Amino acid sequence: MYSQAYLKGLVDNSIVNLSYNREAERLIDPIKYILSVGGKRLRPVLALLSCNLFTDKIEEAVMPATGVEIFHNFTLVHDDIMDQAPVRRNLPTVHYKWNVNQAILSGDVMAFIANECFLQTPSRCLVKVFREYNKAAVEVCTGQQLDIDFETSLIVTDKEYLRMIELKTAVLIAASVKIGAIIGGAEEKYSEFLYEFGRNLGLAFQIQDDLLDTYGDIKLFGKIPGGDIVANKKTFLSVKAFELAKGNSFKILQDLFSDKEGDPEKKIGTVMEIYDEYNIKLLTENLANEYIDKAFRMLDKVDVAKERKKELTSAASSLIGRVK
Amino acid sequence: MYSQAYLKGLVDNSIVNLSYNREAERLIDPIKYILSVGGKRLRPVLALLSCNLFTDKIEEAVMPATGVEIFHNFTLVHDDIMDQAPVRRNLPTVHYKWNVNQAILSGDVMAFIANECFLQTPSRCLVKVFREYNKAAVEVCTGQQLDIDFETSLIVTDKEYLRMIELKTAVLIAASVKIGAIIGGAEEKYSEFLYEFGRNLGLAFQIQDDLLDTYGDIKLFGKIPGGDIVANKKTFLSVKAFELAKGNSFKILQDLFSDKEGDPEKKIGTVMEIYDEYNIKLLTENLANEYIDKAFRMLDKVDVAKERKKELTSAASSLIGRVK
Repeated sequence: MYSQAYLKGLVDNSIVNLSYNREAERLIDPIKYILSVGGKRLRPVLALLSCNLFTDKIEEAVMPATGVEIFHNFTLVHDDIMDQAPVRRNLPTVHYKWNVNQAILSGDVMAFIANECFLQTPSRCLVKVFREYNKAAVEVCTGQQLDIDFETSLIVTDKEYLRMIELKTAVLIAASVKIGAIIGGAEEKYSEFLYEFGRNLGLAFQIQDDLLDTYGDIKLFGKIPGGDIVANKKTFLSVKAFELAKGNSFKILQDLFSDKEGDPEKKIGTVMEIYDEYNIKLLTENLANEYIDKAFRMLDKVDVAKERKKELTSAASSLIGRVK
Repeated sequence: MYSQAYLKGLVDNSIVNLSYNREAERLIDPIKYILSVGGKRLRPVLALLSCNLFTDKIEEAVMPATGVEIFHNFTLVHDDIMDQAPVRRNLPTVHYKWNVNQAILSGDVMAFIANECFLQTPSRCLVKVFREYNKAAVEVCTGQQLDIDFETSLIVTDKEYLRMIELKTAVLIAASVKIGAIIGGAEEKYSEFLYEFGRNLGLAFQIQDDLLDTYGDIKLFGKIPGGDIVANKKTFLSVKAFELAKGNSFKILQDLFSDKEGDPEKKIGTVMEIYDEYNIKLLTENLANEYIDKAFRMLDKVDVAKERKKELTSAASSLIGRVK
């Protein structure tokens, strides 16, 4: 069994060794930049861990896993343009360091570099793996569209919100895990269970991210809490509060989430009081826990020795901050 | 043998019948818009004609050919953002009709819809065809980057310029023709000849486009001539003129191509005088003709009955405005 650190090393190495068409260096520089800025390589590591459930020969999964990581970074480059975000991972975003046109074009070519990686999948499962990836890629774009659409709608139901984060975040994690399983030679039913494992894990992860933005410890998470509230961002918390709040509380929420001018600290305070009034924190934690339980139940259904599941279980647990 | 019109109909039909993830209609509307605005479907028709050289069973080539067309339109949507172009094919561009973010995101998903099309290639040649497409896709992005880079460099050699248009325009035409041949079951050497046929045809086509922008008949081409000169755009004409012009002519060119303020008609007149002085029109026509001759020599080397080549020859001839 391979450790997460070893597998992350494989992915980092594979990224460093990518071969580029070097005729236009300016096209490539932003790609090398965004890929070197790092990140946890969460998706490819999960793919390799999932592959490793079924086989020790994980080499065949390295290029497709790398493809997922490149796709993920492609979405970051383009999403940061759309969000006009100046900073990612404590460094300037691509469109900010270069310019919007460069971020569009260098982003575009990353989608085709991801394709190159998937074209190196073993031929016995290439089409199946590529279809799985490509379906997720379309879904991620669809999720991003819904996220943009939600910005301008005051009321979003919790069902709509959950579907949006499922598309934008969870399906790529699900597809990563499933792709690893397919390449590892998993039976169909196990690769489906692992998809569901990844999907539920991804949902829990995003909901916890929403929680942390409001209730996180500034020392642990390096961000001032309440940013989502100040930015009127839809989160599971705000969506649920809008659903449950009645009378004056609803009116206050409506006013505060239509405003971008008022005092941020006061706004955060008032919104959090309403969250408390309707038990939003607990409701949200409970939902995240439901998804986490479902995820691990799905993993339980995969019939491989418990010992083989250790690393994947540990990676998933640390992702959602739970000791398991 | 199928006619060009019949094959264009197949492609149009295949585009109309594409199935989309409909969860975010706003993502799909711009795609349907750009794909319905039309165009000649040049690349997919060439792919199908090339396939038809070798087999009458061209159905298998329809989805990959459609993929090329979707990719081509994806590049138009993103290039129009980068060029800040308000109009394409006499209608508002996507980023102008919607907004830049929408054009980025709807463009992105087109790249994955193109992938879906290529994943429907017959399995016996799927990887080969997909690799050919993907290589061209990376090259098209690289060509776009060089085109952007050239905007800010006063001197570009004719070799550099020709490589740029090869990447930006010719390789996708070449790949289309080759892909059709591969799916049609062509021997390796013939699919290579056809790639060279398409590449040379694409180069001739772009060089003729440069000629038409300066020397075209306004009635025939619907554009006021001289647009490229006014915009200081690099074309084969301007690049060659910069190479050949001496003394005062060179200085005048340098001044005019650094200026965006002066009287357009006067600028066009002065530049065209210098073009005349150095025989630029004839030199450019000669080069286009060289590429055309090479293209048809390549097609001659493909050993199929002359009768089978009739439609492809006619399509290529009408593309470069030559009766053959």
